[in-house]
Amino acid sequence: MISFNEAIDSINLLATDWGVESVPLEDAAGRVISEPVEADREYPPFNRAAMDGYAVRSGDILEKGIREFRVVGEIFAGQPAAIVVQSGEAVKIMTGAPVPDTADAVIKREDAVETPGGVAFHVDEFVRHQCIAKKGGDIAHGGVIINNSLQIGTGEFSVLASLGKSHVNVFRRPRVALISTGDEILPVGETPASYQIRDANRYSIAGMLDRFRIRPMFTAIVRDEAEVLRRTIESALDNDLLILSGGVSAGDADLVPGILAACGVREQFHRVKIKPGKPLWVGSHPRGARVFALPGNPYSVQAACRLFIDPFLRACFHLPAQAPLLLPMRQARKKQTQFDEFFPARIVNTATGAHAEPLAYHSSGDITASLGTDGMVRHPAGAGDLRAEEIVDLYLWNSIR
Amino acid sequence: MISFNEAIDSINLLATDWGVESVPLEDAAGRVISEPVEADREYPPFNRAAMDGYAVRSGDILEKGIREFRVVGEIFAGQPAAIVVQSGEAVKIMTGAPVPDTADAVIKREDAVETPGGVAFHVDEFVRHQCIAKKGGDIAHGGVIINNSLQIGTGEFSVLASLGKSHVNVFRRPRVALISTGDEILPVGETPASYQIRDANRYSIAGMLDRFRIRPMFTAIVRDEAEVLRRTIESALDNDLLILSGGVSAGDADLVPGILAACGVREQFHRVKIKPGKPLWVGSHPRGARVFALPGNPYSVQAACRLFIDPFLRACFHLPAQAPLLLPMRQARKKQTQFDEFFPARIVNTATGAHAEPLAYHSSGDITASLGTDGMVRHPAGAGDLRAEEIVDLYLWNSIR
Repeated sequence: MISFNEAIDSINLLATDWGVESVPLEDAAGRVISEPVEADREYPPFNRAAMDGYAVRSGDILEKGIREFRVVGEIFAGQPAAIVVQSGEAVKIMTGAPVPDTADAVIKREDAVETPGGVAFHVDEFVRHQCIAKKGGDIAHGGVIINNSLQIGTGEFSVLASLGKSHVNVFRRPRVALISTGDEILPVGETPASYQIRDANRYSIAGMLDRFRIRPMFTAIVRDEAEVLRRTIESALDNDLLILSGGVSAGDADLVPGILAACGVREQFHRVKIKPGKPLWVGSHPRGARVFALPGNPYSVQAACRLFIDPFLRACFHLPAQAPLLLPMRQARKKQTQFDEFFPARIVNTATGAHAEPLAYHSSGDITASLGTDGMVRHPAGAGDLRAEEIVDLYLWNSIR
Repeated sequence: MISFNEAIDSINLLATDWGVESVPLEDAAGRVISEPVEADREYPPFNRAAMDGYAVRSGDILEKGIREFRVVGEIFAGQPAAIVVQSGEAVKIMTGAPVPDTADAVIKREDAVETPGGVAFHVDEFVRHQCIAKKGGDIAHGGVIINNSLQIGTGEFSVLASLGKSHVNVFRRPRVALISTGDEILPVGETPASYQIRDANRYSIAGMLDRFRIRPMFTAIVRDEAEVLRRTIESALDNDLLILSGGVSAGDADLVPGILAACGVREQFHRVKIKPGKPLWVGSHPRGARVFALPGNPYSVQAACRLFIDPFLRACFHLPAQAPLLLPMRQARKKQTQFDEFFPARIVNTATGAHAEPLAYHSSGDITASLGTDGMVRHPAGAGDLRAEEIVDLYLWNSIR
């Protein structure tokens, strides 16, 4: 049995990618940029008025002591700066408009008084280039704006649109197959007998995949019958990623590891020293498919998705792993296992900052174990009881970045 | 001009909802549950074996001292527990299978040795009900599992599927219109002249809406021409939510507030004591549309989306506002304005836990101001310089819960 950290290392070795495709920017939410993005020009692309006011020559104010100016024109945003500003002249200018090359400062409207011949200024403080966002001041032409993979959210949308990326190259998503195994598993729409349960895992796994806008291509519930399971797995191995749940432990009905091996899937590891999620089986097929066989309990599946499949997908998309958030514990917690334990927790703000509050759960079979929580805290294998205020790793369900 | 907190209160008064609809569970990612969810039966629904092993009568072990048992059958997950266990008898049982009513403990496989006549147990520690997840131990029949609005993610999917919600009632999404105003604004696919810029705001606003799986119904770029703008706004007011950017300040080209008023939109407030985002204009139309008119600079738009539109949508979906994360500052920061300032920041983990690291930005017109950041820290109007380790409010771009 390998440790949690060894399992993460092993999963990173399985990372691959599935190529690149171009998508319209409006369809790119949640997708991952696959190539460096360079500035198509300087930004700001022109000397931009940062306030409504008047563009002047700073020498007029600073050296010549001029305070009253002739207004020789006005420039709105979206107009070229086609006016030459001479000494003693001012041009009325709007926020976002280009400042003429012959001017080098903007005096804001609030400091101006219109006079019969033009405009007078009250200028207690004045510096050259004031109220101008200088051309190229933010980004040089050809400067690399994005040089690593980024998942596209609000800020990335803004940058990509500014740079004219009406289409954007993003990593292709894997074709994913989900198989829920177990004689006790029914489809969600059916009414279970007392000894049956519904297929929750298909949906929680799909929920995790949805963060990367991946929708499974194939889903199935398969009974614990070797031949049916073998045929289903065979066919699912045509996908890029196969995720199974259930049947992965060591009981008489746990057929999954043996059948995966029989189908030619090479075992990467089986069993990790963690709770929940210990029976995890991970491997790959020579044709390319990566295979994650998760335990069957709902909280185990959610934990394995966050701890292993999310990092795997991030590695495939060339994204950094989501670092856990380091927070102090809100209260003490008894050690419960010699393995790394991942227990549900939520963030509570206190006067001394955010804390991780441990929440009770009955077992990994408790269908509500993660409800209302923000993530899981790692109770490290090597640690004893956790003390209040001790710094712990919180693995958030959702990604911050 | 109102304060940030007053603006938030005012926006909460504008909250409404747009009804409810039923969607298939597989299409419900990111949607918000609109009604309480009750347990359809007890959970676990039966006394569930938590390990592979043997079901026995605990009295045999604890009172009668029996250590060797006849094996009278086996029960797999998905089978009814149709075996009566008599004294001296054991039933082989798999994880997830129902324990017969006549047994009340499971001895795990590792503690068992097969004998010619049956099975013998090494039981140093033994308690009644061991290795059994008791029927109803997690949730009572009819118990309310979800009694408030929740956005559907991994954990919620798992619960809803377990309870058989093949369709789920969720809040309807608003019909949204986006209008970018300004003579300088070009569509993303066109090549701007030196004094023009591309329409970034449409995409960053759409990126924020996408968190709730809202896609705008209508988008437009409108020049600063009163009549065109008036007609476009008139028609956009048929939507539930109209978001404009640009033209909302006090310059000669800032036509938006006047035209909104002329179109019958009642002003809720105009201008907030914050930086960036001061010129924000918010109102509502008697026919129902809520209107947010944002400033035009990209970072101002992103800030206004996070600080005002996200909380507005959450209020409409009956979700709690996203509380800021309270973290210590990584380093000191000078006060820069007498308003509440929201500056970009990222989370860095240190030996004493997560900290908020302030990042430099040139201006709200800097197209990369938010890139690579996790959120914005509020530099409060009433505070002086921020000290290192001082606890601050971090408004994350993405939601944790």
